[in-house]
Amino acid sequence: MRQNAPNARKTYMKETTMASEKVLAHLDAHRDQHVDQLCDFLRIPSISSQSDHDDDSRRAAAFVADELRELGLEVETIELGGLPLVFAQTEIRPDRKTLLFYGHYDVQPVDPLDLWDNPPFEPVIKDGIVYARGASDDKGQVYTHIKALEAYIRTGEELLVNVKFIIEGEEESGGESIYRFTEENPDKLACDAIVVSDTTLYNESIPGICYSLKGLAYMEIRVDGPAKDLHSGSYGGTVKNPGNALAEIVAGLMDADGRCLVPGFYDAVLDLDDEERAGFAELGYTDEILKDETGAPAAFGEKGYTTLERMWARPTCDVNGLVSGYGGEGAKTVLPAKALAKVSMRLVPNQDPDAVAKAFADHVHAIAPAGVTVEVENLHNANPVLVPRKSDMMQAGMRSLEQGFGAKPVFIREGGSIPIVGTFQEYLKSPVLLLGYGLSTDNIHSPNEKFHLDNYWRGIRTSAILMVEAAK
Amino acid sequence: MRQNAPNARKTYMKETTMASEKVLAHLDAHRDQHVDQLCDFLRIPSISSQSDHDDDSRRAAAFVADELRELGLEVETIELGGLPLVFAQTEIRPDRKTLLFYGHYDVQPVDPLDLWDNPPFEPVIKDGIVYARGASDDKGQVYTHIKALEAYIRTGEELLVNVKFIIEGEEESGGESIYRFTEENPDKLACDAIVVSDTTLYNESIPGICYSLKGLAYMEIRVDGPAKDLHSGSYGGTVKNPGNALAEIVAGLMDADGRCLVPGFYDAVLDLDDEERAGFAELGYTDEILKDETGAPAAFGEKGYTTLERMWARPTCDVNGLVSGYGGEGAKTVLPAKALAKVSMRLVPNQDPDAVAKAFADHVHAIAPAGVTVEVENLHNANPVLVPRKSDMMQAGMRSLEQGFGAKPVFIREGGSIPIVGTFQEYLKSPVLLLGYGLSTDNIHSPNEKFHLDNYWRGIRTSAILMVEAAK
Repeated sequence: MRQNAPNARKTYMKETTMASEKVLAHLDAHRDQHVDQLCDFLRIPSISSQSDHDDDSRRAAAFVADELRELGLEVETIELGGLPLVFAQTEIRPDRKTLLFYGHYDVQPVDPLDLWDNPPFEPVIKDGIVYARGASDDKGQVYTHIKALEAYIRTGEELLVNVKFIIEGEEESGGESIYRFTEENPDKLACDAIVVSDTTLYNESIPGICYSLKGLAYMEIRVDGPAKDLHSGSYGGTVKNPGNALAEIVAGLMDADGRCLVPGFYDAVLDLDDEERAGFAELGYTDEILKDETGAPAAFGEKGYTTLERMWARPTCDVNGLVSGYGGEGAKTVLPAKALAKVSMRLVPNQDPDAVAKAFADHVHAIAPAGVTVEVENLHNANPVLVPRKSDMMQAGMRSLEQGFGAKPVFIREGGSIPIVGTFQEYLKSPVLLLGYGLSTDNIHSPNEKFHLDNYWRGIRTSAILMVEAAK
Repeated sequence: MRQNAPNARKTYMKETTMASEKVLAHLDAHRDQHVDQLCDFLRIPSISSQSDHDDDSRRAAAFVADELRELGLEVETIELGGLPLVFAQTEIRPDRKTLLFYGHYDVQPVDPLDLWDNPPFEPVIKDGIVYARGASDDKGQVYTHIKALEAYIRTGEELLVNVKFIIEGEEESGGESIYRFTEENPDKLACDAIVVSDTTLYNESIPGICYSLKGLAYMEIRVDGPAKDLHSGSYGGTVKNPGNALAEIVAGLMDADGRCLVPGFYDAVLDLDDEERAGFAELGYTDEILKDETGAPAAFGEKGYTTLERMWARPTCDVNGLVSGYGGEGAKTVLPAKALAKVSMRLVPNQDPDAVAKAFADHVHAIAPAGVTVEVENLHNANPVLVPRKSDMMQAGMRSLEQGFGAKPVFIREGGSIPIVGTFQEYLKSPVLLLGYGLSTDNIHSPNEKFHLDNYWRGIRTSAILMVEAAK
């Protein structure tokens, strides 16, 4: 988690809840049950990027749909060629504001499996923390909104807002269903605010609302040489080795200071304004904190920017995977037929993922050595997001967080991407509220993913309060 | 296989066998049986570099030991901490010359398994070719000598030489047993010639004796960064990515023309003499032949040398494997905790593998970027080998090949390494006869490894004839 810097604000506010005592008492009384139910959700191995888990992903969709149906919502399971979308809504009364809650029931792959302390789909609770794939990203977070709504339904307390849910199953695999649905059904998703809980608190004692997400251009580079793996003795020195060729290409993506060498890469980057720089600096994030969080031997990156500025507001270019030849135990003297790299570029406002992906492909082809065949594929993209910090809904979100967590929230950015948020902004024209309940140390996308139950319960409470605050 | 160049010699000699008609008739009558028995040997998945196959490797050792014991040889199975050595000898009469036959019962790993047309340990015979892992490297080749000796024992024909076998199980994994045994027991292995069949014919119609093998320095580079895989959005741009770092290191091993950048790498290289260059040129090997053999889009390598010169007499530096992060289907946005490369350098006379390995490690540390931890390990080494072309035993070998294959043999080199040969030269001080029966297209170390049965039978015949020719 982010450690508190000496000067970080720790003002705890007197709690002046706007949600009814009945609703909040219901939440308190059902904490254990809410954890048990979350664990049932986490047991479903809904890995969307691995097609042999498609049945599991469909079970996860049904799990969500069944819960919402049981709460009396009108529920649709929508199939658009990939994994299903679950859309649900309460009775829509035009005199009320409408909140649209978005989340995803799919999860990341689990390898390397041997680094997990417990099987990733057998949740374990230890010291108030639940460990499982999807605990924080995003099952645990999206589920807070369902439990918050449930409290209104079960207590019979009047809902002051209309509530809609759109929960997808292709967030981790770059599927198209949610995009198609949003573009073709903006009326169905029409709302006064889109609430997305798929980001983090600033740290365990300071909540925050995220006002900017990085975008993404995810690329795959495939290098082909000989028709099959060759004996490195028989043919070494006579043909270009695809493994060596791939290394040359990847080495040509970045300079020694961590700046990306793709021509034009930085042209559209929106610089931070002074207020943002000052706000970041006030948080007191240091390289020591980074090293604690990551275990990396040192901080590294572009000169002229603080580590938090690079993390939140500078575009990056990272190898996500390298594969070629033999990677097992011992030695195999093979000259590999092919080599593959997965490379993702995290983009910031106002970079255009399509333009960056094209420039990347052109650059790779330009620097590729002779003697091999090189293909570049753009696996998926996401637009960067920037949300105005001053709006009624942003203020309602800040008040809800402050009451739900009992601490004054701050404005933060996030290096991760939530690709759909840009599309929501474009087609629904409503403010996006990035209310994150995770921690940066929740090991999302890594072994031993986890979610703090305190943050889970506070998150449910925050969502319940928001259903009142947003009505103002 | 090597195609015949227009000017390649195709003079077929009148066969003037020196082995008895009885022995040769026995071989002709048992061709099918010899194939069946070889298939039994090939069914044992003796992958020495994978410890979960150790039991299989021991079964392969027992298979060989049992056969030799049944022929009446004195057999020892020697355990020196790794996989067993099988040593066997006929009755040793001091008035006879002694041939020591060396080979290995272990095989390479089989991945990528999905590129095999049949399961690698279920031999299939099609169009006179047996397909299985180990068919050519080296089970099929070492077995020729056992079958040749068997013909003498079964027919009761007098052996004119003493025969010893030393068959190991760690050739493909760089194990130490054979080295320790050779260094500690030179008297036991004492002989007038060491016969090694683990190389190739020049092509399917021209046999050859190999007079030089490349050496090897096999390296592993391990790059460590964060303590665990990170989310590439959350931490991209803040720490050095081990995948990018590894690519930079590997790219720094070679220049754009395929010359190795390790300082001093070429210092000890013995240049080809004019006779060798002329001999290579006469074979008429072309880049078109190379492209046919490998399926590579083009030839590539050091300027100033023909392709055959690079293949046979220039040192190389090849990636054998790259592993980092996520290599599966689709996208995973991970910043990997570590990255690994396996790199082998094939060395020529008079390069010293230890010195090269040290220079390599120094170079890697010198070019490694900051922000990651880099380890270099020298997994195993082999000395390059050069055998004088003019000796009695070499002439006996040439005569045997000519009669066994019915064609005039040529002198060839080999890009592969047989690490033990250098040690044999050093400790046994006897000439090494590299009598190869494989083809360069036998897919050794690759999917669909194969061995032509015609070459198997001719090989057995050649070995049987050598048991007479060597006695002269």
